[in-house]
Amino acid sequence: MNSETLDLETMRHSAAHVMAEAVKSVFPTARFGIGPAIENGFYYDFELPRTLTPEDLPLITQKMQAIISQNMPFTRTDVSKEQARSILADQPYKMELIDEIPSGETISLYTQGSFTDLCRGPHIASSGEIKVFKLTGIAGAYWRGDEHRPMLQRIYAAAFATQQELDDYLTLQEEAAKRDHRKLGRELEIFIFDDDVGPGLPLWLPNGAAMIDEIENLAKDIEARHGYVRVKTPHVTKETLFLRSGHLPYYAESMYPPMELEGVRYYIKPMNCPLHHKIYASKPRSYRDLPLRLAEYGTCYRYEKSGELFGLMRVRSMQMNDAHIYCTEKQFEQEFMAVIRLYLDYFKIFDISEYVMRLSTHTATGLGKKYVDNPELWLKTESMVRQAMNSNGVPFVEIPDEAAFYGPKIDVQVKSAIGREFTLATNQVDFAQAERFELEYTNENGEKERPLIIHRAPLSTHERLIGFLLEHYGGVLPVWLAPLQVVIIPVTDGHIAYAEKLETALKDLALRVKVDSRSERMNAKIREAQKSKIPCMLIIGEKEVTEGTVSIRLRSGEQINNYAFEGFAKGLQKCVMDKAKDFAV
Amino acid sequence: MNSETLDLETMRHSAAHVMAEAVKSVFPTARFGIGPAIENGFYYDFELPRTLTPEDLPLITQKMQAIISQNMPFTRTDVSKEQARSILADQPYKMELIDEIPSGETISLYTQGSFTDLCRGPHIASSGEIKVFKLTGIAGAYWRGDEHRPMLQRIYAAAFATQQELDDYLTLQEEAAKRDHRKLGRELEIFIFDDDVGPGLPLWLPNGAAMIDEIENLAKDIEARHGYVRVKTPHVTKETLFLRSGHLPYYAESMYPPMELEGVRYYIKPMNCPLHHKIYASKPRSYRDLPLRLAEYGTCYRYEKSGELFGLMRVRSMQMNDAHIYCTEKQFEQEFMAVIRLYLDYFKIFDISEYVMRLSTHTATGLGKKYVDNPELWLKTESMVRQAMNSNGVPFVEIPDEAAFYGPKIDVQVKSAIGREFTLATNQVDFAQAERFELEYTNENGEKERPLIIHRAPLSTHERLIGFLLEHYGGVLPVWLAPLQVVIIPVTDGHIAYAEKLETALKDLALRVKVDSRSERMNAKIREAQKSKIPCMLIIGEKEVTEGTVSIRLRSGEQINNYAFEGFAKGLQKCVMDKAKDFAV
Repeated sequence: MNSETLDLETMRHSAAHVMAEAVKSVFPTARFGIGPAIENGFYYDFELPRTLTPEDLPLITQKMQAIISQNMPFTRTDVSKEQARSILADQPYKMELIDEIPSGETISLYTQGSFTDLCRGPHIASSGEIKVFKLTGIAGAYWRGDEHRPMLQRIYAAAFATQQELDDYLTLQEEAAKRDHRKLGRELEIFIFDDDVGPGLPLWLPNGAAMIDEIENLAKDIEARHGYVRVKTPHVTKETLFLRSGHLPYYAESMYPPMELEGVRYYIKPMNCPLHHKIYASKPRSYRDLPLRLAEYGTCYRYEKSGELFGLMRVRSMQMNDAHIYCTEKQFEQEFMAVIRLYLDYFKIFDISEYVMRLSTHTATGLGKKYVDNPELWLKTESMVRQAMNSNGVPFVEIPDEAAFYGPKIDVQVKSAIGREFTLATNQVDFAQAERFELEYTNENGEKERPLIIHRAPLSTHERLIGFLLEHYGGVLPVWLAPLQVVIIPVTDGHIAYAEKLETALKDLALRVKVDSRSERMNAKIREAQKSKIPCMLIIGEKEVTEGTVSIRLRSGEQINNYAFEGFAKGLQKCVMDKAKDFAV
Repeated sequence: MNSETLDLETMRHSAAHVMAEAVKSVFPTARFGIGPAIENGFYYDFELPRTLTPEDLPLITQKMQAIISQNMPFTRTDVSKEQARSILADQPYKMELIDEIPSGETISLYTQGSFTDLCRGPHIASSGEIKVFKLTGIAGAYWRGDEHRPMLQRIYAAAFATQQELDDYLTLQEEAAKRDHRKLGRELEIFIFDDDVGPGLPLWLPNGAAMIDEIENLAKDIEARHGYVRVKTPHVTKETLFLRSGHLPYYAESMYPPMELEGVRYYIKPMNCPLHHKIYASKPRSYRDLPLRLAEYGTCYRYEKSGELFGLMRVRSMQMNDAHIYCTEKQFEQEFMAVIRLYLDYFKIFDISEYVMRLSTHTATGLGKKYVDNPELWLKTESMVRQAMNSNGVPFVEIPDEAAFYGPKIDVQVKSAIGREFTLATNQVDFAQAERFELEYTNENGEKERPLIIHRAPLSTHERLIGFLLEHYGGVLPVWLAPLQVVIIPVTDGHIAYAEKLETALKDLALRVKVDSRSERMNAKIREAQKSKIPCMLIIGEKEVTEGTVSIRLRSGEQINNYAFEGFAKGLQKCVMDKAKDFAV
């Protein structure tokens, strides 16, 4: 944190005090919780005689502006615990905080104008230093985040050094709200949740299933070219499998509870790895069989508290772009870097230009606790990864003490077009599971060795990736990924037959197309297709039928008239194959 | 049963008595269970002083042949229960059977030569009438099939009227053993079971996963052309969903037990239907949206007792070629028959020429018990199906009292190339679930109506279909379905580079190909590819490299030399697209 951000943070924190003073002037009996600076602004929690509404915010804003224009100084007073208790006697939440301060410690109070608050500081010199702010919302918040304590009212605000920064932030927020994947998921009919099915368990509607199919086809095609073979494993397995892998008992609280059948406990799988290891172990392997790359779009189930679920980003069922690469030590660098390059290839396809690779390593103090107790293998595999990244010129940052249980990993953090961060799964080295599953291969000298295992999931899960892509593209999906690629709109009923002929021709090219033959007005149909962000509309009237052409209207608004149908069909097919964003002549 | 089969059955039953006499001459202390005629032959259960081995069968056969050549007459004696008890006093199993005969009933004994048996008859006149037989195997069998009673030893035999019939039967048996999908599944590396994963839960190896992908692509392509849209639903749902569908509590014993999370019970789904109904219900539907055809290759989990599991044919996890068609009554016939035609199309693709369609209907006595209690809708939907089949000229047989709970159904029974029967899923009408899930649509007059639902799964489950196809084709899978389509065999290491160039070119056409560059002898490689039933081998030597040709060896043994590579690649691609059995020039 540099001094500039420190100053901004101080200003934001001081603005929270000013907001508290303003609220007190409106609600003299208000009780105060806490009011910290946060990213982009600040908040304060209050207990008030009535529930706030958005209509309250202009008055509070006005009172704050008055305090700012009076340029009231912030003054610090150091007091004893007893003095603090007496000054804030009518503020039960502050009293609770005071009680927790060790006896004998000096307590600081800050006062501006008529308002005094328990506070460590620092603060700005006087309220006039507060630049631009905007109250952005009201929310309920439990005192100290504890659902058994009272629910307070929280007012959020944004605050910046300049009006321009505030405006940019608010615009981005507005844009982000429009691009929220939950909102787009509903509008574009991608997925739903259902009370009878359960929280965190999305049902994919036809449009979502079409996206999933495209993404799976992409992965299958690319993985086949990269020498992966596919497998398919059950979602339910005996407890013994997860005891062997070590997920039980340690990982049990992230798993669904067991089912007992014929005296045997079964679990739904939270991961695919142990099942792939079983396939590796199903026949003797030689060094000539390695690397063996087993891929599966496997669906896993994990328990997340219902309060922590969030749209498609935090779910309980997740279909993972999973694969495990079993290789010799000599093959490690090439295999590891091939995966890193796969990430970069996918970034190009999905127009992701900002990303960070983070190498997470172990710490010696965690050995035998959060990390497998084998210091030599830790150092060796970490240096293998470091060396692979360096010698291939791929930049990364190193984060100590964030490795997986069984080895170091590269986390890939990407930024969406609107700046939202998103961890796009990981690329992990595993030197421990081969031992647990007794995986081995015969080397060139006829001796048994353990393979290294790379766990990877570049396309993350369908849930997270599609959630991300919806926000990243704001719903304007590239044409290859668009659930519906073409809507054909006949001008009158007389043109339906021709429209249907074109539909069949486009379907034969495996394009997703629909004729809108409803008895609505043409403009209403165009508006609706536009709202659903359909890449291409074909308007079919007399001229088009006679001449065997189409009039193309793109979702950008661009209009291309009298285009030969054949040329459109082939052009669109090429544009899908090239993973282009939009049809272009 | 006609008189001829009756005679054959009598002969077989008499042969069982002769086998018992022969066993008694070898083991004088033998105790006898029962010895019925069965399809193709007979068996008898014995308690013997030692365990039989296959080496015992020639001696028993020889003793039987001696009895037959002596042409001993079968004589019947009617006795009282007491007389029977005294005659068979040293035969505890027979005594148990005698005890169960109601007092006062006459008991018949049959004697040939030195052997007397409790038996209802009838029998042949004398042992000389026994034509040809062959002892085929030994197995353990619990007395009266009860695992708490003693285990007896059963000798199986085949018996026919002519040597030709016996030979044909034995040949078919041998062929069937070779084609057993469990054996082929192992040899061709299609699937495995694993003790740590659990019974009935297959893990698909790369070759199996390749078959699954092809079958899914076939279904997706055909279903898209038939106007289906795809959805994707979770494997885990809340209990309330299955209470609403009516699967709970009635179907509970075929389901995995529940898991409890946050006080809510969850089940893994035994069926996809309720989830599809939820998608139907997720927005208002109009008659213009119907028919709505929702398809999903959904994996379901059902509990089968471990003793009833059988290879891929009876499993606990099954991935189903599922779809539900929601339609109006007016649309019913067209939709129902489109599904029937889909079956016929698939039969052509899979070379299935023998099949029977069975219409299963309700019975009035089952109403309110095994059938939804709505007699009018039963009669109406049954007659709709009957009429649809008749007016489209599709033959069917009608089976009363075998309908589904919620409506009549067409079961499709197919015969594999070696005559094994197999139920290829069903086509079901459902007039009850729409009510339970409150599914509706707005009709032309703005009124709400319930849709009819058709449940269908023409390609059954991956498990059953692939099990069937392995046996049907004896592992010689059509080239489009073969996990590996081409093996390229370089004559020397000098030809590997060219071989790999061809490999890439074939992969670009989405063909499944591998270069066998191991340091084995060429003939060994050919033998191995032949054993794995790979459709095409390309032999690459000096001549081929120089001339840009390939020497093709088909699995039939056919050899095509000096063929232009381009021609081969295009030809094979076409043959895959046409779903041909083999590559042909």
